[in-house]
Amino acid sequence: MDKQMIDDLVNQVIRELEKKDKCLQVEASGRHVHLSKEDAQQLFGTDTLTPERELSQPGQFLSKEKVNLIGPKGSFKDVAVLGPLREKTQVEISMTDARALGIPPVLKESGDLTNCADLWIQYKNKMIEAKSSAMVAKRHIHMTPEDATHLQVQDGETVAVRVYGQRQITFEDVLVRVNPRYQLRMHIDYDEANAVGLGKNTYGKIISTGEREKA
Amino acid sequence: MDKQMIDDLVNQVIRELEKKDKCLQVEASGRHVHLSKEDAQQLFGTDTLTPERELSQPGQFLSKEKVNLIGPKGSFKDVAVLGPLREKTQVEISMTDARALGIPPVLKESGDLTNCADLWIQYKNKMIEAKSSAMVAKRHIHMTPEDATHLQVQDGETVAVRVYGQRQITFEDVLVRVNPRYQLRMHIDYDEANAVGLGKNTYGKIISTGEREKA
Repeated sequence: MDKQMIDDLVNQVIRELEKKDKCLQVEASGRHVHLSKEDAQQLFGTDTLTPERELSQPGQFLSKEKVNLIGPKGSFKDVAVLGPLREKTQVEISMTDARALGIPPVLKESGDLTNCADLWIQYKNKMIEAKSSAMVAKRHIHMTPEDATHLQVQDGETVAVRVYGQRQITFEDVLVRVNPRYQLRMHIDYDEANAVGLGKNTYGKIISTGEREKA
Repeated sequence: MDKQMIDDLVNQVIRELEKKDKCLQVEASGRHVHLSKEDAQQLFGTDTLTPERELSQPGQFLSKEKVNLIGPKGSFKDVAVLGPLREKTQVEISMTDARALGIPPVLKESGDLTNCADLWIQYKNKMIEAKSSAMVAKRHIHMTPEDATHLQVQDGETVAVRVYGQRQITFEDVLVRVNPRYQLRMHIDYDEANAVGLGKNTYGKIISTGEREKA
Protein backbone atom coordinates (compact mmCIF):
# COMPACT_ATOMS: atom_id res chain seq x y z
CA MET A 1 0.00 0.00 0.00
CA ASP A 2 1.63 3.30 -1.05
CA LYS A 3 1.62 6.60 0.87
CA GLN A 4 -1.11 8.15 -1.26
CA MET A 5 -3.40 5.22 -0.58
CA ILE A 6 -2.79 5.45 3.18
CA ASP A 7 -3.44 9.21 3.12
CA ASP A 8 -6.67 8.66 1.20
CA LEU A 9 -7.82 6.05 3.69
CA VAL A 10 -6.96 8.21 6.69
CA ASN A 11 -8.83 11.15 5.17
CA GLN A 12 -11.84 9.02 4.46
CA VAL A 13 -11.94 7.69 8.04
CA ILE A 14 -11.62 11.23 9.44
CA ARG A 15 -14.39 12.41 7.11
CA GLU A 16 -16.71 9.67 8.25
CA LEU A 17 -15.95 10.33 11.93
CA GLU A 18 -16.57 14.06 11.39
CA LYS A 19 -19.99 13.32 9.97
CA LYS A 20 -20.85 10.96 12.80
CA ASP A 21 -19.97 13.56 15.42
CA LYS A 22 -21.26 16.51 13.39
CA CYS A 23 -17.74 17.90 13.65
CA LEU A 24 -16.19 20.31 11.22
CA GLN A 25 -12.95 22.23 10.89
CA VAL A 26 -13.13 25.95 11.65
CA GLU A 27 -11.07 28.46 9.66
CA ALA A 28 -10.61 32.20 10.21
CA SER A 29 -10.96 34.43 7.15
CA GLY A 30 -8.87 37.59 7.14
CA ARG A 31 -10.04 40.71 5.37
CA HIS A 32 -10.15 40.16 1.61
CA VAL A 33 -11.50 41.42 -1.67
CA HIS A 34 -13.42 39.77 -4.52
CA LEU A 35 -13.26 41.88 -7.67
CA SER A 36 -15.53 42.21 -10.67
CA LYS A 37 -14.00 41.86 -14.13
CA GLU A 38 -14.48 45.61 -14.71
CA ASP A 39 -12.84 46.63 -11.42
CA ALA A 40 -9.90 44.24 -11.96
CA GLN A 41 -9.45 45.74 -15.43
CA GLN A 42 -9.51 49.26 -13.95
CA LEU A 43 -7.00 48.47 -11.21
CA PHE A 44 -4.57 46.04 -12.87
CA GLY A 45 -5.15 46.78 -16.56
CA THR A 46 -6.13 43.14 -17.10
CA ASP A 47 -9.08 40.95 -16.14
CA THR A 48 -6.94 37.96 -15.19
CA LEU A 49 -5.71 37.36 -11.64
CA THR A 50 -2.42 35.52 -10.98
CA PRO A 51 -2.99 32.59 -8.56
CA GLU A 52 -0.52 32.40 -5.64
CA ARG A 53 -2.01 29.44 -3.77
CA GLU A 54 -5.22 27.43 -3.58
CA LEU A 55 -7.73 27.92 -0.76
CA SER A 56 -9.74 25.25 1.05
CA GLN A 57 -12.79 25.79 -1.15
CA PRO A 58 -12.16 24.08 -4.53
CA GLY A 59 -11.42 26.51 -7.35
CA GLN A 60 -10.87 29.47 -5.00
CA PHE A 61 -7.39 30.96 -4.85
CA LEU A 62 -5.34 33.70 -3.26
CA SER A 63 -3.98 35.92 -6.02
CA LYS A 64 -0.54 37.52 -6.18
CA GLU A 65 -2.25 40.91 -6.61
CA LYS A 66 -2.71 42.89 -3.38
CA VAL A 67 -4.71 46.11 -2.98
CA ASN A 68 -5.10 48.88 -0.42
CA LEU A 69 -8.47 49.56 1.23
CA ILE A 70 -9.13 53.19 2.09
CA GLY A 71 -11.92 54.50 4.29
CA PRO A 72 -12.73 57.94 5.71
CA LYS A 73 -10.79 57.27 8.92
CA GLY A 74 -8.13 54.69 8.10
CA SER A 75 -6.69 52.28 5.56
CA PHE A 76 -5.22 48.79 5.16
CA LYS A 77 -2.27 48.03 2.92
CA ASP A 78 -1.68 44.88 0.84
CA VAL A 79 -5.07 43.26 1.35
CA ALA A 80 -5.65 39.81 -0.19
CA VAL A 81 -7.52 39.57 -3.49
CA LEU A 82 -9.26 36.22 -3.95
CA GLY A 83 -10.00 34.62 -7.29
CA PRO A 84 -11.74 33.83 -9.49
CA LEU A 85 -13.32 37.16 -10.44
CA ARG A 86 -16.99 37.61 -9.55
CA GLU A 87 -19.93 39.43 -11.01
CA LYS A 88 -19.69 42.17 -8.37
CA THR A 89 -16.88 43.53 -6.24
CA GLN A 90 -17.25 42.45 -2.59
CA VAL A 91 -14.97 43.49 0.27
CA GLU A 92 -15.11 41.34 3.41
CA ILE A 93 -13.90 42.89 6.65
CA SER A 94 -14.37 42.40 10.39
CA MET A 95 -16.21 44.82 12.68
CA THR A 96 -12.80 45.85 14.05
CA ASP A 97 -11.69 46.65 10.49
CA ALA A 98 -14.88 48.65 9.82
CA ARG A 99 -14.21 50.77 12.91
CA ALA A 100 -10.57 51.36 11.81
CA LEU A 101 -11.66 52.29 8.28
CA GLY A 102 -14.45 54.53 9.61
CA ILE A 103 -17.27 52.81 7.72
CA PRO A 104 -20.44 51.16 9.09
CA PRO A 105 -20.08 47.44 9.97
CA VAL A 106 -22.84 46.06 7.74
CA LEU A 107 -23.54 42.42 8.64
CA LYS A 108 -24.54 40.58 5.45
CA GLU A 109 -24.74 37.21 3.83
CA SER A 110 -21.97 36.90 1.21
CA GLY A 111 -23.34 37.87 -2.21
CA ASP A 112 -26.03 40.21 -0.86
CA LEU A 113 -24.55 43.61 -1.71
CA THR A 114 -27.61 45.77 -1.04
CA ASN A 115 -26.86 48.64 1.35
CA CYS A 116 -23.27 47.64 2.00
CA ALA A 117 -20.65 50.26 2.89
CA ASP A 118 -18.62 52.32 0.41
CA LEU A 119 -14.84 52.45 0.31
CA TRP A 120 -11.96 53.03 -2.04
CA ILE A 121 -9.69 50.34 -3.45
CA GLN A 122 -6.21 51.38 -4.53
CA TYR A 123 -3.55 49.61 -6.59
CA LYS A 124 -0.42 51.64 -7.30
CA ASN A 125 -1.57 54.73 -9.25
CA LYS A 126 -5.13 53.45 -9.74
CA MET A 127 -8.06 54.12 -7.42
CA ILE A 128 -11.67 52.98 -7.71
CA GLU A 129 -14.61 53.89 -5.53
CA ALA A 130 -16.31 50.63 -4.60
CA LYS A 131 -19.85 51.75 -3.77
CA SER A 132 -21.93 49.43 -1.56
CA SER A 133 -19.19 46.78 -1.57
CA ALA A 134 -17.99 46.34 2.01
CA MET A 135 -19.62 43.90 4.43
CA VAL A 136 -18.99 41.93 7.59
CA ALA A 137 -19.80 38.49 6.19
CA LYS A 138 -22.11 36.33 8.30
CA ARG A 139 -20.36 33.31 9.75
CA HIS A 140 -21.17 30.25 7.65
CA ILE A 141 -20.47 26.61 6.91
CA HIS A 142 -19.62 25.39 3.42
CA MET A 143 -20.76 21.86 2.69
CA THR A 144 -21.82 19.50 -0.08
CA PRO A 145 -25.40 18.18 -0.39
CA GLU A 146 -24.03 14.86 0.91
CA ASP A 147 -22.61 16.60 4.02
CA ALA A 148 -25.96 18.33 4.53
CA THR A 149 -27.78 15.00 4.49
CA HIS A 150 -25.37 13.47 6.99
CA LEU A 151 -25.44 16.53 9.25
CA GLN A 152 -29.23 16.79 8.95
CA VAL A 153 -29.21 20.45 7.93
CA GLN A 154 -30.43 22.36 4.89
CA ASP A 155 -29.09 25.11 2.65
CA GLY A 156 -29.97 28.54 4.09
CA GLU A 157 -30.68 27.19 7.57
CA THR A 158 -28.91 28.71 10.58
CA VAL A 159 -27.42 26.37 13.14
CA ALA A 160 -25.50 26.63 16.41
CA VAL A 161 -21.91 25.41 16.44
CA ARG A 162 -19.87 24.81 19.58
CA VAL A 163 -16.24 25.60 18.80
CA TYR A 164 -13.50 24.06 20.92
CA GLY A 165 -11.08 27.00 21.07
CA GLN A 166 -8.98 28.25 23.97
CA ARG A 167 -12.10 29.94 25.39
CA GLN A 168 -15.07 27.92 24.21
CA ILE A 169 -18.05 29.48 22.46
CA THR A 170 -21.26 28.27 20.91
CA PHE A 171 -21.78 30.41 17.84
CA GLU A 172 -25.45 30.71 17.02
CA ASP A 173 -26.78 32.18 13.75
CA VAL A 174 -24.32 30.18 11.65
CA LEU A 175 -25.51 30.03 8.06
CA VAL A 176 -25.44 26.72 6.18
CA ARG A 177 -24.36 27.03 2.54
CA VAL A 178 -24.69 23.92 0.41
CA ASN A 179 -23.04 23.45 -2.98
CA PRO A 180 -21.65 20.33 -4.68
CA ARG A 181 -18.37 22.22 -5.19
CA TYR A 182 -17.85 23.09 -1.51
CA GLN A 183 -15.60 21.43 1.02
CA LEU A 184 -16.85 21.06 4.61
CA ARG A 185 -15.52 24.07 6.52
CA MET A 186 -16.85 26.68 8.94
CA HIS A 187 -15.64 30.22 8.23
CA ILE A 188 -15.49 32.94 10.85
CA ASP A 189 -13.76 36.33 10.87
CA TYR A 190 -10.85 37.37 13.07
CA ASP A 191 -13.07 39.00 15.73
CA GLU A 192 -14.86 35.69 16.11
CA ALA A 193 -11.62 33.68 15.91
CA ASN A 194 -10.11 35.78 18.71
CA ALA A 195 -13.28 35.59 20.80
CA VAL A 196 -13.02 31.78 20.81
CA GLY A 197 -9.20 31.65 20.93
CA LEU A 198 -8.99 29.71 17.66
CA GLY A 199 -5.86 27.65 17.11
CA LYS A 200 -4.69 25.56 14.18
CA ASN A 201 -6.96 22.57 13.50
CA THR A 202 -9.73 23.80 15.79
CA TYR A 203 -12.95 21.86 15.40
CA GLY A 204 -16.57 22.75 15.97
CA LYS A 205 -19.64 20.61 16.42
CA ILE A 206 -23.12 21.39 15.14
CA ILE A 207 -25.67 21.38 17.94
CA SER A 208 -28.99 20.36 16.47
CA THR A 209 -32.10 22.53 16.66
CA GLY A 210 -33.73 20.12 19.08
CA GLU A 211 -30.73 20.20 21.41
CA ARG A 212 -30.60 24.02 21.19
CA GLU A 213 -34.18 24.39 22.30
CA LYS A 214 -33.43 22.45 25.47
CA ALA A 215 -30.49 24.78 26.29
CA MET B 1 -43.77 60.69 44.05
CA ASP B 2 -40.64 62.49 42.77
CA LYS B 3 -38.46 61.53 39.81
CA GLN B 4 -35.76 59.97 42.00
CA MET B 5 -38.31 57.74 43.70
CA ILE B 6 -39.71 56.59 40.33
CA ASP B 7 -36.17 55.89 39.03
CA ASP B 8 -35.40 53.88 42.16
CA LEU B 9 -38.57 51.84 41.79
CA VAL B 10 -37.96 51.20 38.08
CA ASN B 11 -34.39 50.10 38.81
CA GLN B 12 -35.57 47.80 41.59
CA VAL B 13 -38.17 46.17 39.33
CA ILE B 14 -35.58 45.68 36.54
CA ARG B 15 -33.15 44.20 39.05
CA GLU B 16 -35.72 41.72 40.30
CA LEU B 17 -36.70 40.74 36.75
CA GLU B 18 -33.05 40.30 35.84
CA LYS B 19 -32.58 37.91 38.73
CA LYS B 20 -35.69 35.96 37.83
CA ASP B 21 -34.54 35.46 34.24
CA LYS B 22 -30.86 35.13 35.12
CA CYS B 23 -30.34 38.14 32.86
CA LEU B 24 -27.45 40.56 33.10
CA GLN B 25 -26.15 43.54 31.22
CA VAL B 26 -23.08 42.97 29.06
CA GLU B 27 -20.37 45.61 28.71
CA ALA B 28 -17.32 45.70 26.42
CA SER B 29 -14.01 46.67 28.04
CA GLY B 30 -11.55 48.48 25.81
CA ARG B 31 -7.82 48.13 26.34
CA HIS B 32 -6.79 49.71 29.63
CA VAL B 33 -4.09 49.92 32.26
CA HIS B 34 -4.09 49.49 36.04
CA LEU B 35 -0.95 50.98 37.59
CA SER B 36 0.95 50.26 40.76
CA LYS B 37 1.79 53.16 43.09
CA GLU B 38 5.46 52.89 42.09
CA ASP B 39 4.75 52.89 38.35
CA ALA B 40 2.34 55.84 38.65
CA GLN B 41 5.01 57.73 40.58
CA GLN B 42 7.57 56.92 37.86
CA LEU B 43 5.31 57.99 35.01
CA PHE B 44 3.40 60.95 36.43
CA GLY B 45 5.65 62.05 39.30
CA THR B 46 2.75 61.49 41.71
CA ASP B 47 0.92 58.47 43.12
CA THR B 48 -2.51 60.06 42.78
CA LEU B 49 -4.71 59.62 39.69
CA THR B 50 -7.20 62.32 38.64
CA PRO B 51 -10.70 60.82 38.23
CA GLU B 52 -12.47 61.76 34.97
CA ARG B 53 -15.65 59.66 35.36
CA GLU B 54 -16.97 56.75 37.40
CA LEU B 55 -17.24 53.24 35.94
CA SER B 56 -20.02 50.70 36.46
CA GLN B 57 -18.12 48.90 39.25
CA PRO B 58 -18.40 50.99 42.43
CA GLY B 59 -15.18 52.85 43.35
CA GLN B 60 -13.59 52.25 39.94
CA PHE B 61 -12.92 55.27 37.75
CA LEU B 62 -11.45 56.34 34.44
CA SER B 63 -8.58 58.73 35.12
CA LYS B 64 -7.67 61.85 33.17
CA GLU B 65 -4.16 60.41 32.69
CA LYS B 66 -3.61 58.53 29.42
CA VAL B 67 -0.53 56.48 28.51
CA ASN B 68 0.99 54.93 25.40
CA LEU B 69 1.52 51.16 25.15
CA ILE B 70 4.55 50.11 23.13
CA GLY B 71 5.33 46.60 21.92
CA PRO B 72 7.99 45.16 19.59
CA LYS B 73 5.73 45.50 16.53
CA GLY B 74 3.28 48.32 17.24
CA SER B 75 1.91 50.78 19.76
CA PHE B 76 -1.32 52.35 21.02
CA LYS B 77 -1.61 56.02 21.96
CA ASP B 78 -3.70 57.54 24.76
CA VAL B 79 -4.76 54.31 26.43
CA ALA B 80 -7.15 54.57 29.42
CA VAL B 81 -5.70 54.34 32.93
CA LEU B 82 -8.23 53.06 35.48
CA GLY B 83 -8.18 53.91 39.16
CA PRO B 84 -7.71 53.35 41.97
CA LEU B 85 -4.05 52.27 41.91
CA ARG B 86 -3.37 48.57 42.48
CA GLU B 87 -0.63 46.54 44.05
CA LYS B 88 0.71 45.51 40.62
CA THR B 89 0.58 47.06 37.17
CA GLN B 90 -1.80 45.14 34.88
CA VAL B 91 -2.42 45.90 31.21
CA GLU B 92 -5.59 44.44 29.69
CA ILE B 93 -5.71 44.05 25.92
CA SER B 94 -7.59 42.00 23.33
CA MET B 95 -6.02 39.27 21.18
CA THR B 96 -6.24 41.69 18.24
CA ASP B 97 -4.29 44.25 20.29
CA ALA B 98 -1.66 41.65 21.24
CA ARG B 99 -1.11 40.84 17.56
CA ALA B 100 -0.78 44.56 16.70
CA LEU B 101 1.68 45.12 19.57
CA GLY B 102 3.63 41.99 18.67
CA ILE B 103 3.35 40.33 22.08
CA PRO B 104 1.87 36.92 22.99
CA PRO B 105 -1.90 36.93 23.76
CA VAL B 106 -1.76 35.49 27.28
CA LEU B 107 -5.27 34.54 28.44
CA LYS B 108 -5.47 35.11 32.21
CA GLU B 109 -7.79 35.72 35.07
CA SER B 110 -7.49 39.36 36.19
CA GLY B 111 -5.00 39.62 39.06
CA ASP B 112 -2.97 36.56 38.03
CA LEU B 113 0.16 38.18 36.64
CA THR B 114 2.36 35.08 36.38
CA ASN B 115 3.83 34.63 32.89
CA CYS B 116 2.05 37.59 31.37
CA ALA B 117 3.58 39.48 28.43
CA ASP B 118 6.08 42.35 28.70
CA LEU B 119 5.59 45.78 27.20
CA TRP B 120 6.56 49.39 27.65
CA ILE B 121 4.32 52.11 29.05
CA GLN B 122 5.10 55.68 28.05
CA TYR B 123 3.89 59.03 29.39
CA LYS B 124 5.47 62.10 27.82
CA ASN B 125 9.21 61.87 28.50
CA LYS B 126 8.90 58.90 30.88
CA MET B 127 9.05 55.23 29.90
CA ILE B 128 8.77 52.15 32.10
CA GLU B 129 9.22 48.53 31.16
CA ALA B 130 6.21 46.67 32.53
CA LYS B 131 7.49 43.10 32.80
CA SER B 132 4.88 40.32 32.91
CA SER B 133 2.02 42.84 32.96
CA ALA B 134 -0.03 42.34 29.79
CA MET B 135 -2.92 39.87 29.57
CA VAL B 136 -6.07 39.10 27.66
CA ALA B 137 -8.47 39.09 30.62
CA LYS B 138 -10.83 36.12 30.80
CA ARG B 139 -14.45 37.11 30.27
CA HIS B 140 -16.21 37.39 33.61
CA ILE B 141 -19.29 38.45 35.53
CA HIS B 142 -19.11 40.78 38.52
CA MET B 143 -21.80 40.16 41.11
CA THR B 144 -22.63 40.50 44.79
CA PRO B 145 -23.08 37.46 47.07
CA GLU B 146 -26.81 38.21 46.94
CA ASP B 147 -26.76 38.06 43.11
CA ALA B 148 -24.83 34.79 43.30
CA THR B 149 -27.50 33.26 45.53
CA HIS B 150 -30.29 34.36 43.20
CA LEU B 151 -28.44 33.23 40.09
CA GLN B 152 -27.44 29.95 41.80
CA VAL B 153 -23.75 30.30 40.98
CA GLN B 154 -20.58 30.52 43.06
CA ASP B 155 -17.43 32.63 43.09
CA GLY B 156 -14.79 31.10 40.80
CA GLU B 157 -17.29 28.97 38.89
CA THR B 158 -17.44 29.20 35.11
CA VAL B 159 -20.83 29.48 33.46
CA ALA B 160 -22.27 29.73 29.95
CA VAL B 161 -23.98 32.99 29.01
CA ARG B 162 -26.16 33.45 25.93
CA VAL B 163 -25.74 37.03 24.72
CA TYR B 164 -28.46 38.59 22.60
CA GLY B 165 -26.31 40.64 20.21
CA GLN B 166 -26.72 41.21 16.48
CA ARG B 167 -25.23 37.75 15.87
CA GLN B 168 -26.06 35.64 18.90
CA ILE B 169 -23.43 33.69 20.82
CA THR B 170 -23.34 31.52 23.90
CA PHE B 171 -20.08 32.35 25.63
CA GLU B 172 -18.84 29.42 27.65
CA ASP B 173 -15.97 29.63 30.16
CA VAL B 174 -17.35 32.81 31.71
CA LEU B 175 -15.82 33.33 35.14
CA VAL B 176 -18.06 34.30 38.08
CA ARG B 177 -16.49 36.88 40.43
CA VAL B 178 -18.35 37.60 43.64
CA ASN B 179 -17.70 40.59 45.89
CA PRO B 180 -20.06 42.67 48.05
CA ARG B 181 -18.72 45.79 46.31
CA TYR B 182 -19.50 44.59 42.76
CA GLN B 183 -22.41 45.55 40.55
CA LEU B 184 -23.98 42.84 38.35
CA ARG B 185 -22.27 43.12 34.94
CA MET B 186 -20.69 40.80 32.40
CA HIS B 187 -17.43 42.11 30.93
CA ILE B 188 -16.07 41.02 27.55
CA ASP B 189 -13.34 42.48 25.37
CA TYR B 190 -13.80 44.09 21.95
CA ASP B 191 -13.02 40.89 20.02
CA GLU B 192 -15.83 39.20 21.90
CA ALA B 193 -18.12 42.24 21.62
CA ASN B 194 -17.63 42.30 17.83
CA ALA B 195 -18.09 38.55 17.53
CA VAL B 196 -21.56 38.88 19.10
CA GLY B 197 -22.41 42.26 17.51
CA LEU B 198 -22.85 43.93 20.90
CA GLY B 199 -25.01 47.04 20.96
CA LYS B 200 -25.92 49.43 23.76
CA ASN B 201 -27.92 47.76 26.53
CA THR B 202 -27.27 44.25 25.29
CA TYR B 203 -28.30 41.57 27.76
CA GLY B 204 -27.12 38.06 28.39
CA LYS B 205 -28.68 35.14 30.22
CA ILE B 206 -26.87 32.58 32.31
CA ILE B 207 -27.54 29.05 31.09
CA SER B 208 -27.28 26.73 34.06
CA THR B 209 -24.90 23.79 34.18
CA GLY B 210 -27.77 21.33 33.95
CA GLU B 211 -29.15 23.01 30.85
CA ARG B 212 -25.69 23.13 29.29
CA GLU B 213 -25.20 19.41 29.69
CA LYS B 214 -28.36 18.77 27.71
CA ALA B 215 -27.08 20.97 24.86
